[in-house]
Amino acid sequence: MAKQNAFYAQSGGVTAVINASACGVIEAAREHRSHIAKVYAGRNGIIGALREELIDVSKESASTIASLRHTPSGAFGSCRYKLKSLEQNRAEYERLIEVFKAHNIGYFFYNGGGDSADTCLKVSQLAQSMGYPIKAIHVPKTVDNDLPYTDCSPGFGSVAKYVAVSTREASLDVASMCETSTKVFILEVMGRNAGWIAAAGGLAQEQEGDAPHIILMPEVAFDRQKFLKKVQATVKKHGYCVIVASEGAQYKDGRFLADSGIVDAFGHTQLGGVAPTLASMISDELGYKYHWALADYLQRAARHIASATDVEQAYAVGRAAVEQAVAGKNSIMITIERGAGKRYSWTTGEVALDKVANVEKKMPRKFITRDGFGITQAARDYLLPLIQGEDYPPYKLGVPQYARLKKVLVAKKTKTTFKV
Amino acid sequence: MAKQNAFYAQSGGVTAVINASACGVIEAAREHRSHIAKVYAGRNGIIGALREELIDVSKESASTIASLRHTPSGAFGSCRYKLKSLEQNRAEYERLIEVFKAHNIGYFFYNGGGDSADTCLKVSQLAQSMGYPIKAIHVPKTVDNDLPYTDCSPGFGSVAKYVAVSTREASLDVASMCETSTKVFILEVMGRNAGWIAAAGGLAQEQEGDAPHIILMPEVAFDRQKFLKKVQATVKKHGYCVIVASEGAQYKDGRFLADSGIVDAFGHTQLGGVAPTLASMISDELGYKYHWALADYLQRAARHIASATDVEQAYAVGRAAVEQAVAGKNSIMITIERGAGKRYSWTTGEVALDKVANVEKKMPRKFITRDGFGITQAARDYLLPLIQGEDYPPYKLGVPQYARLKKVLVAKKTKTTFKV
Repeated sequence: MAKQNAFYAQSGGVTAVINASACGVIEAAREHRSHIAKVYAGRNGIIGALREELIDVSKESASTIASLRHTPSGAFGSCRYKLKSLEQNRAEYERLIEVFKAHNIGYFFYNGGGDSADTCLKVSQLAQSMGYPIKAIHVPKTVDNDLPYTDCSPGFGSVAKYVAVSTREASLDVASMCETSTKVFILEVMGRNAGWIAAAGGLAQEQEGDAPHIILMPEVAFDRQKFLKKVQATVKKHGYCVIVASEGAQYKDGRFLADSGIVDAFGHTQLGGVAPTLASMISDELGYKYHWALADYLQRAARHIASATDVEQAYAVGRAAVEQAVAGKNSIMITIERGAGKRYSWTTGEVALDKVANVEKKMPRKFITRDGFGITQAARDYLLPLIQGEDYPPYKLGVPQYARLKKVLVAKKTKTTFKV
Repeated sequence: MAKQNAFYAQSGGVTAVINASACGVIEAAREHRSHIAKVYAGRNGIIGALREELIDVSKESASTIASLRHTPSGAFGSCRYKLKSLEQNRAEYERLIEVFKAHNIGYFFYNGGGDSADTCLKVSQLAQSMGYPIKAIHVPKTVDNDLPYTDCSPGFGSVAKYVAVSTREASLDVASMCETSTKVFILEVMGRNAGWIAAAGGLAQEQEGDAPHIILMPEVAFDRQKFLKKVQATVKKHGYCVIVASEGAQYKDGRFLADSGIVDAFGHTQLGGVAPTLASMISDELGYKYHWALADYLQRAARHIASATDVEQAYAVGRAAVEQAVAGKNSIMITIERGAGKRYSWTTGEVALDKVANVEKKMPRKFITRDGFGITQAARDYLLPLIQGEDYPPYKLGVPQYARLKKVLVAKKTKTTFKV
């Protein structure tokens, strides 16, 4: 097989470890020079390919590439840009193939979540039908942990660790002052459709009675009265109550709690958020003093407290993608497979892309306690291995030293300018 | 001098390292058994003394006490309970002396901020006038860094490190996606009256153009138009804009930005917050997509990313308090003194309590850039040493292992029940 170049792109919301996958892809590619000549990375993700803005990764030193392993965010730039269906916008796919062809790209490593798995599949199919076959491999990434066929999604373990650690720490703070001050603390975390991240807050709990006392997940319909009763009972019993809430917590009819419905004096919809909504409810009905935190990007960027297991897995899926591609595989997503033994073990595996696309994995009911406010031992058994180990980045002047890339662009070869 | 017991209490908002001060007090006291018999800690702070709820620290093992050094929050409980003035409520002070007398307490170590320095002084004065002299030593603590006569306040260095690290991480996240997604990110941090914590966000900046691009401190009057202009110019130049805002950011007339003035459909004042207020402004006027985070308790409880320098200083002020008391000192606050050399060095010192009480140290103007949106090299020189070094807690099952105390109460000796 003739040597070809590889294209790598980061897609969607970034994570603390997506660059570890980039590192895996690039380091493995450098070990397979007989197959892969150069790795080009999309500047700002797939739109980098559409615009023919390709970063020449060979211009980055080995030590810079190695430092990607401990750098959060998307070092090459990522984007929220969903390619339309083939029927709706065939031109976009054809443009991708045009650019790939122009730069002799025979490998496409797409690092993202569910949407990008779908794109990856379509690119592979169209390339084939256009007589320019490409090995398209999806490298899984999402803090949401909602990808199917993989035991977990790289990116999730680190956000889970951040949420567990932060919940434990903030809970101690609240507990130590609840006698005269804040009685209820709410931490709002990511998870629009699935409660995996909120569930991880439950790992802060060591003994019966420990915080968090209530976890709100989108999988369980929110019942205002039941919730307030639980808050009150918890404060009466423990003196305080800690709640970890998914941003996607919702009523039975699917309405988000964050959707406040309030319009301000200027006619603008008032900014929502689950935490302030819950806080208002508690204050109005129970009168407790409250505080709340909204971790937002802090949670998915928190490389300083990344899970070592997650970092290793993110790196491994990047490497595996290259190895599978070089071995001739196509249209697959790399997966994490959990070993059967009692002691946690994992290997990388693979699954056909057509199975993955557009399937969302939610928390199974057996992971949620009967009252809907906590996680079960089964959930704990599943989650706990994913947050194991600390993988501290190097520090300089008191803050973590993260990679800075040169991002040298490859000279354009197509004559078209494609506007996205 | 006859052996007497010591009373230690934690006061006001807790920090990531106040327990390191407790550790310093207790370990030093155990080395001075010829002077100090037992250490009693107030359950939930000073109200523990008023209620005669004294935790017998001798019931805690040496290893548990050692683990306080890496445990955030107030392990003995803290409170927001300001003693009234002597004129307004002399009974409260007399009650304190009554309890101290009943338990042969000759040493009072009060671990808190400005208010507790004042209380500490009054207790010492009244005890003297009541013929029951007590050595009252204030152990400084506050994330706000607003105590005078000390180079810095233990607790601040760790929150400063948290904010610097979080700002750097979240900024990379925003930068990597700004082409198609969020353009403005706002991190709201603590600091009602002084901008020290927000200023520390500036340490995330390594090179010209790095985030944060705007820091809002209470010391600089907020100018809406100037602010929006700066946001717009930053987005145009760098593609994104990161803002670190003090909760105490305010207009020229002293009105807090967080004071939204909006009343909801039920007649309740809408929950404020600087970050959502700024976000609305930006969205309305500039139309940029934004995200914001509210770190709240997470920032002051974040022992997992504490500054090693801060931990050492917190421990040292606890030890020094005991050593000074045993040496006969009274009515002083322990301070941190910065060495004169170019290389950072520090020692503990002391200052008379009557100088400290009710003085608040704000950011000097020379620490703030001319445009009011950033920190100067002088600020950097001051702040940087305070966040140096990492002091990671031990982990078990993926989360930090923090101290759990037995908190055995001493049998009551007074006949009075004092209601607080």
